[in-house]
Amino acid sequence: MKIAVLGTGMVGRALAGRLAELGHEVAVGTRDVDATMARTESDAMGNPPYAEWAHAHAEVRLARFADATAHAELVINATSGNASITALGAAGREHLAGKVLLDIANPLDYSQGFPPSLFVGNTDSLAEQIQAAFPEARVVKSLNTMNALLMADPRQLADGDHTVFVSGDDADAKHVVTELLQSFGHGDVIDLGDLSTARGTESLLPAWVRLYGVLGAPMFQFKIVR
Amino acid sequence: MKIAVLGTGMVGRALAGRLAELGHEVAVGTRDVDATMARTESDAMGNPPYAEWAHAHAEVRLARFADATAHAELVINATSGNASITALGAAGREHLAGKVLLDIANPLDYSQGFPPSLFVGNTDSLAEQIQAAFPEARVVKSLNTMNALLMADPRQLADGDHTVFVSGDDADAKHVVTELLQSFGHGDVIDLGDLSTARGTESLLPAWVRLYGVLGAPMFQFKIVR
Repeated sequence: MKIAVLGTGMVGRALAGRLAELGHEVAVGTRDVDATMARTESDAMGNPPYAEWAHAHAEVRLARFADATAHAELVINATSGNASITALGAAGREHLAGKVLLDIANPLDYSQGFPPSLFVGNTDSLAEQIQAAFPEARVVKSLNTMNALLMADPRQLADGDHTVFVSGDDADAKHVVTELLQSFGHGDVIDLGDLSTARGTESLLPAWVRLYGVLGAPMFQFKIVR
Repeated sequence: MKIAVLGTGMVGRALAGRLAELGHEVAVGTRDVDATMARTESDAMGNPPYAEWAHAHAEVRLARFADATAHAELVINATSGNASITALGAAGREHLAGKVLLDIANPLDYSQGFPPSLFVGNTDSLAEQIQAAFPEARVVKSLNTMNALLMADPRQLADGDHTVFVSGDDADAKHVVTELLQSFGHGDVIDLGDLSTARGTESLLPAWVRLYGVLGAPMFQFKIVR
């Protein structure tokens, strides 16, 4: 499948690399290709410059948001939550229309430092804001409740014995995303229902960041025992 | 130990019954003993009247909030979240001073119907509101992330292979609560840190209520795989 991954950070790279490994035709979307490739220093999170990663993943094309999205059948929003609406606007409403838009971003608010709170509270969600801004996209929320390495390759922890959630208003779009998740190795996919259920999964983040603080490493995951 | 369980609903009953079974001296606290015992109909949640439960649990004393709390060494807040501050006020600031106050309530807001949202958002928590209102109590948040039957007897699901969290500013109080949780059968207790981490566990509820909707039964639990 032709897939656009919007966002050049750790999350975008983990998914783009995995998708390419699984045989998909992947373009990573960015605001400014030249600027992204020109960076020579690690980012604030300690990730090496994109060009270094790109060198090791020559099969993944880097393109402007609109270019990557125009040629994609499925689009993944892996940008920062507070930049997502702007990035998707740059990707182009017309290029998103009718396409499955997998939103994996979180509405994290770092304005008061660490740990972040959520800028949407629990009566709204970033996923719903994106759907409202791009009504012709078929938005599915998923994967936002775990570390990027586990999103892409869940079997790295407990042989994949943990849970991922999907939320969305379009049953066919959720089916496409569920199959993609299963191809990554996710064995337990729970369909929570319509897109408003993303309020629940985005609200797992305040616990996630506290657990990260206590456990000291991000290789943990929620499992729904039942 | 002498324990007061404030609240006569399903949650209070499950904990009071289990504590009595484990040999504790338990008093259930209520606003008006006569009114509670006079009820002959099931409540809005379908629970049988308290008198019926009391008949089968003669070892558990029913008392006014203040009476139950005055004689207790440990107090459990099992009232509705929106009634907790009032109920604890009736229990009496002077009777709570210096005592471990295990808060298991959730700040659920049903004003817009089901599913509920949270009335505290994710930048505050009911636990912190209780601590602020009763600064001499030693508040510990726990158990609020699961069904009442699993709070009291976690081995009813997957032989207890799931996770419970504790949050609080008083290390000794958290130690007392952790031992109590272990006596119930909780094998995986994660200390998330200070009381503000209750924002994280209270924020699990929006996901919990959606999972309840999808799974159709409340016998499920969060496990932190790591």
